[in-house]
Amino acid sequence: MNYALLQGKKGIIFGALNDQSIAWKVAERCHEEGAEFILSNAPIAMRMGELNTLAEKTGSEVIPADATSTEDLEKLFDAAVAKFGKLDFILHSIGMSVNIRKGKPYTDLNYDYLQKGWDVSAVSFHKVMKMAWDKDCMNEWGSILALTYIAAQRVFPNYGDMADNKAFLESIARSFGYYFGEKKVRVNTISQSPVMTKAGAGVKGITGFFNFADHMSPLGNADALDCANYCVAMFSDLTKMVTMQNLFHDGGFSMVGVSQKVVDKYEEEL
Amino acid sequence: MNYALLQGKKGIIFGALNDQSIAWKVAERCHEEGAEFILSNAPIAMRMGELNTLAEKTGSEVIPADATSTEDLEKLFDAAVAKFGKLDFILHSIGMSVNIRKGKPYTDLNYDYLQKGWDVSAVSFHKVMKMAWDKDCMNEWGSILALTYIAAQRVFPNYGDMADNKAFLESIARSFGYYFGEKKVRVNTISQSPVMTKAGAGVKGITGFFNFADHMSPLGNADALDCANYCVAMFSDLTKMVTMQNLFHDGGFSMVGVSQKVVDKYEEEL
Amino acid sequence: MNYALLQGKKGIIFGALNDQSIAWKVAERCHEEGAEFILSNAPIAMRMGELNTLAEKTGSEVIPADATSTEDLEKLFDAAVAKFGKLDFILHSIGMSVNIRKGKPYTDLNYDYLQKGWDVSAVSFHKVMKMAWDKDCMNEWGSILALTYIAAQRVFPNYGDMADNKAFLESIARSFGYYFGEKKVRVNTISQSPVMTKAGAGVKGITGFFNFADHMSPLGNADALDCANYCVAMFSDLTKMVTMQNLFHDGGFSMVGVSQKVVDKYEEEL
Amino acid sequence: MNYALLQGKKGIIFGALNDQSIAWKVAERCHEEGAEFILSNAPIAMRMGELNTLAEKTGSEVIPADATSTEDLEKLFDAAVAKFGKLDFILHSIGMSVNIRKGKPYTDLNYDYLQKGWDVSAVSFHKVMKMAWDKDCMNEWGSILALTYIAAQRVFPNYGDMADNKAFLESIARSFGYYFGEKKVRVNTISQSPVMTKAGAGVKGITGFFNFADHMSPLGNADALDCANYCVAMFSDLTKMVTMQNLFHDGGFSMVGVSQKVVDKYEEEL
Repeated sequence: MNYALLQGKKGIIFGALNDQSIAWKVAERCHEEGAEFILSNAPIAMRMGELNTLAEKTGSEVIPADATSTEDLEKLFDAAVAKFGKLDFILHSIGMSVNIRKGKPYTDLNYDYLQKGWDVSAVSFHKVMKMAWDKDCMNEWGSILALTYIAAQRVFPNYGDMADNKAFLESIARSFGYYFGEKKVRVNTISQSPVMTKAGAGVKGITGFFNFADHMSPLGNADALDCANYCVAMFSDLTKMVTMQNLFHDGGFSMVGVSQKVVDKYEEEL
Repeated sequence: MNYALLQGKKGIIFGALNDQSIAWKVAERCHEEGAEFILSNAPIAMRMGELNTLAEKTGSEVIPADATSTEDLEKLFDAAVAKFGKLDFILHSIGMSVNIRKGKPYTDLNYDYLQKGWDVSAVSFHKVMKMAWDKDCMNEWGSILALTYIAAQRVFPNYGDMADNKAFLESIARSFGYYFGEKKVRVNTISQSPVMTKAGAGVKGITGFFNFADHMSPLGNADALDCANYCVAMFSDLTKMVTMQNLFHDGGFSMVGVSQKVVDKYEEEL
Repeated sequence: MNYALLQGKKGIIFGALNDQSIAWKVAERCHEEGAEFILSNAPIAMRMGELNTLAEKTGSEVIPADATSTEDLEKLFDAAVAKFGKLDFILHSIGMSVNIRKGKPYTDLNYDYLQKGWDVSAVSFHKVMKMAWDKDCMNEWGSILALTYIAAQRVFPNYGDMADNKAFLESIARSFGYYFGEKKVRVNTISQSPVMTKAGAGVKGITGFFNFADHMSPLGNADALDCANYCVAMFSDLTKMVTMQNLFHDGGFSMVGVSQKVVDKYEEEL
Repeated sequence: MNYALLQGKKGIIFGALNDQSIAWKVAERCHEEGAEFILSNAPIAMRMGELNTLAEKTGSEVIPADATSTEDLEKLFDAAVAKFGKLDFILHSIGMSVNIRKGKPYTDLNYDYLQKGWDVSAVSFHKVMKMAWDKDCMNEWGSILALTYIAAQRVFPNYGDMADNKAFLESIARSFGYYFGEKKVRVNTISQSPVMTKAGAGVKGITGFFNFADHMSPLGNADALDCANYCVAMFSDLTKMVTMQNLFHDGGFSMVGVSQKVVDKYEEEL
């Protein structure tokens, strides 16, 4: 697809890691639609990733930044302003829970880990917007997006403290979105279906949940490319008056109480 | 239990049919808590029911009324006012879908049936409140409740057009609740877990769904007696400033995206 | 703007009346984006309108249909199928309250008027989708939209029984959207800011409310053209996995508890 | 009022400061209803407060604890268990934003202050529940409550980063509530109207907002005593199956889009 929807628009995309990342797909689609952007990720994540491949493919520059570091963000935004002047869009696709990584259950959180995950997954979004605010570097009708998950509204065991972080993230979007209104800039979150990665496929805990979500969604789980297309729509001039919203991109999952497929499964044994 | 929470309070309870009805349990509990009330149900429903047993047990009068009929409601409210003076509480537990009874799927609704179900299940609540409004017969700090189901927010296949009726009902509660504020009367809906009836037990489509709901609810499905207790709390003076709310009484179902039990079921086969 | 986003797409647009109608703007924008469509409105509304001007401008055919009439809808859909084969999009922008027109307050609804408004404003959406379902005339990844208002969630006095109708309409979108998932068709509602019309400007009750909404919205009230752009995005292939959602297009109104402008107004007198 | 609703129940009440505190009223009402409890507050807050008066009045013990300190909480819970055996209820009424105290606007948060406020206002609730979980000291059908504010859902300027903290707090209630289901313990939040304090009365920024909220609420703003009554209902056995909910106790504010009083104010000048 190429509609030139983002022709002439400039931005920063945080969080592309490899070709299964949503942010990676967003970068590819933004490039196809005519946008120019800087790719950024945490230095530590980049060492594991293949971001340079994406940078070449999309004619982008890579500028590493720890999004929890005001210093790193300042350098990144200074470089972005030097290159582009003002910005039209920002994607925040950053999240990580140390408690989950370390296998700490929700009832036994380590509070240092909690703080680290909160800082990375949620506060970083405030830091990014504050930097854009301080530099006054968003064009009018610019669009800022963060990716989130429905665990912010309902409990999914094993999503652990990321649920609370996502709730904080979504609140930041509303709170800062209120102020960015003055500058005619919109701020929203997209609440995306679970996306299966190579690492997750076949893992019992992940596959069972993924299949349940797919069975509950009338259109099935939305994939990373679909999500990238939705991000393009939200960065485009077609959605200028949508702000402070949490937008479910999930094949209908959020609005289903139970699907026939799930009921059927529960009736098999009867 | 008996806390005398409703000592001296007077009301009308619509919709008790037999001892499995929520309204039946509400009547029993209101009686235990010291309330006096009139029991009302549609003449056609009463012929099938055992309402007189309940009336004797609770020292209540039965006054039949088709809640879609302004004439019937006028007689009922006139009798209530003659007996009690002003009222403190009303319970609306009325719902019926002709489309579901006749086995019409949601994609093939009969629109006459739709209108009939809408009138019985939703508009009747407006008619009841309008009658109370016109007679100006609610005491200050009175409490009006209707029972509803989460299908008003999320889709449950086979709940069919009742979902849309419940959405309308909940909107009526908010809309009329706004105006009843002037009279210091509150209006709320309680969104209750599915309740298994003798008729439903063992029926494949019903049992599977009931078990799913139970597995998704951290406290399990709430039963009719629990619901009656919640109604007592909402009729009491402890909840005077709660109005226009839809209150989930569901063991947590509404706030769970997936439970471990459900994931486990999905992983059995992997 | 013209991105050819809807190139080759075919649809039906209900509810354009004059150049202040949102549906009118949607038609203009869909035309610019390459879509072909039939314009439809109630015969009685069309006599007052200037729909032929729009039809000429957009190369469209006008087919009158009372959207509450299955017969009219059948003729319309037969004509659409004859002309286009399958359809890609439908816009439902139809709403009317007899009670409001006749000045009946919410606490004194006429129930015949209520039923008429419900049928026109809400049930018509089911009838339209049922016709599309029966004819099996939606292409995969087709998109069905209805316009709604936040009165479905919160009370706005004077919006009266339209609030309840919109709640029913939004529930229909979810319920039918669940089933349309099988056909890979999405169904959503857009909850739009109030739009000032020539008729409303200067009228006390309307202007005060419009200004309040504008003051509460960080981006101000969204206008009809903005809404049309959002509809284009929702009809396009960029939003294929968004379904059963109620999407606020309101400059942020829905997510503001109070704005500084409103607080300032409340503090003037202190 | 005294219904002996909490006869024999034991608990801990966090956050009573002076006779205008909601927690203070909760303590008084719980005492009247027959409960026994420990009063706890941060040592630093207690030096300013009059907690001993309340302790005497209610026959309670005061045990200071910084609710962000696992060590303090452990001592507190050990003392509670020693005194009461198992517990039936806990109230968390703790919140503080350093950014607001220091006058830092939301667009210019100090991130150390943010973390401190987050820890005090939100994480402390997790710490309290984790301690109760680890000690396994909640009776079946126990009830845990935290107080919150609608800023978690919608923006109120000047509520600043407390909005994000409250969103995190409410998410904790859901997340931990899911797990406490296993133990038949419920966890909910009550979202309370603004309460005017002596300090706030007459202050321009506060009074204007308080009056707006009052004008938007059909029953007016709920006061601290009303809130205490609602807490009693939620601690009682009448609400055993309500869990993971955020319960608005606000005179209807949350469900009003605009009130006639507010529209009238906006029309005065027209």
